[in-house]
Amino acid sequence: MESLLDLIIIGKGPAGVTAAIYAKRAGLNFIVLKNPYEVDSQILNTYDIDNYTGFFKLSGSDLYNNFNEHLKYFNIDVINEKVIDIKIEDDKVKNVITKKKSYKSKTVIVATGAKPKKLGIDNEDKYVGMGLSYCATCDGAFYKDKTVAVIGSGNVAVEDSIFLSRICKKVYLIIRKDKMKADKILQEEILKLSNVEILFNTSVKNIQGENKIEKLVLSNDMVLDVDGFFVAIGNIPNTEFISNIVETKNGYIVAGEDCESSVKGIYGCGDVRTKQLYQVITACSDGANSITSLSRYLSTF
Amino acid sequence: MESLLDLIIIGKGPAGVTAAIYAKRAGLNFIVLKNPYEVDSQILNTYDIDNYTGFFKLSGSDLYNNFNEHLKYFNIDVINEKVIDIKIEDDKVKNVITKKKSYKSKTVIVATGAKPKKLGIDNEDKYVGMGLSYCATCDGAFYKDKTVAVIGSGNVAVEDSIFLSRICKKVYLIIRKDKMKADKILQEEILKLSNVEILFNTSVKNIQGENKIEKLVLSNDMVLDVDGFFVAIGNIPNTEFISNIVETKNGYIVAGEDCESSVKGIYGCGDVRTKQLYQVITACSDGANSITSLSRYLSTF
Repeated sequence: MESLLDLIIIGKGPAGVTAAIYAKRAGLNFIVLKNPYEVDSQILNTYDIDNYTGFFKLSGSDLYNNFNEHLKYFNIDVINEKVIDIKIEDDKVKNVITKKKSYKSKTVIVATGAKPKKLGIDNEDKYVGMGLSYCATCDGAFYKDKTVAVIGSGNVAVEDSIFLSRICKKVYLIIRKDKMKADKILQEEILKLSNVEILFNTSVKNIQGENKIEKLVLSNDMVLDVDGFFVAIGNIPNTEFISNIVETKNGYIVAGEDCESSVKGIYGCGDVRTKQLYQVITACSDGANSITSLSRYLSTF
Repeated sequence: MESLLDLIIIGKGPAGVTAAIYAKRAGLNFIVLKNPYEVDSQILNTYDIDNYTGFFKLSGSDLYNNFNEHLKYFNIDVINEKVIDIKIEDDKVKNVITKKKSYKSKTVIVATGAKPKKLGIDNEDKYVGMGLSYCATCDGAFYKDKTVAVIGSGNVAVEDSIFLSRICKKVYLIIRKDKMKADKILQEEILKLSNVEILFNTSVKNIQGENKIEKLVLSNDMVLDVDGFFVAIGNIPNTEFISNIVETKNGYIVAGEDCESSVKGIYGCGDVRTKQLYQVITACSDGANSITSLSRYLSTF
């Protein structure tokens, strides 16, 4: 007979890794599943992380590597299988179905993170990898001494622009509204940079170029000659496989600090849940809290 | 005229340090106050920390030192003054009064942590520092090859017992109920140790000894010959100075994930607030969240 697990953790970003660490310490019988077709964590797309308390001047990949080491330290393996559905078999058993097989568990932590939001202009997809990128940290180095544009106004867009200004000859930061949403410290920093030009009240209407991006046509019909274009306008939670099972809001699993979703035994953890602040440290906190919540639930079995 | 600060952070444990880092990044005009008469953070009383995601095999003092380095990196100074009262001058200005002076601020983050709970037996205070300790990590080394007892049943009590078993000849773990509350992994670990004896359904009635602890009289009138006695039965939040101003429950500031107390502009952050899980990582998360909450409030000024 197929064994019934205590817990399946889906995802191995900060939330999933922390949940796994706490699950191991709590003596739970669990597995970690991760989608092999997506990047393991958005931290891999982050250049500098200077607000993970106690550890500044880390790169995203440094922190990711540390998370992997932490899993190894506790002998926690990760199974590379994409979850495509979850069926609730009776009141208490969840059947987690991957592309390869299925697993039965008493509880499920959804910690699948989020992915970048697309701009939504007609030929956006055509230029992905041909000058259009959702990740300055990944692709910025290809634009050494060239001219690029960034669209967005939050921390990521401003951080990306600062990062790119060190590599590129010129950076345009395109902001659709009349002000930046980024932290003041970042706003102050970017205003000091002589090779960054900020265009407020502007959007991108069209992308032009033969085999790669050459020009951006802006909402005011101004044309920017650019070699690269970075879209940094936000994220979409990776919750497609769960959105018909638990209550969601704008794609996010509706859950509070205890990570409890609308279905008992299913937890939304990290960037997938409704919360006021999406950060590595708040995702980690969710990982810990979800184990406390589900331990309480497991005692009802 | 005295200047009006955006924020005063009281405390420099994981919550206070994280709040300071996020406040700096948000460009706020703030100070950090810390009580010079109490230990800066409970992490200084913790031997191993293996659940701070990404950084295992850290000692509490390692992590504390990293927090200090992080403050230095952002040029954040800490003022050594004990806060004795907070007066709300009008709807929006808080007057934070220390033993030396007073500071006016739009917002206040209370991140003063918690301290160990006392057992409450008659001669407990008499033996503090004479064999009785609330911190195995601090004082365990004084009991090399000796016999000690620990009272408590949570993670700290069991971790302390495991720690002491490496130093001492014999460790009694006294548990008042019929089971341990600690994580299963810790329960399994302690049961493997040949020099630890667990006494369930037992409490301590009395302490005996001339100039230092010599004997513990238990509830069943059994007498234990011990050289040291470690009390690990929980914590009390450091909220005396604020408990007449904001709503509290068992001493904890009533606040959710957003850290908002019952008074606008005052935030309970970390171990001082009501929450399901008191950990370094959840305290850090509070520090970040409280800055998001208060930034929203500051925009109303």
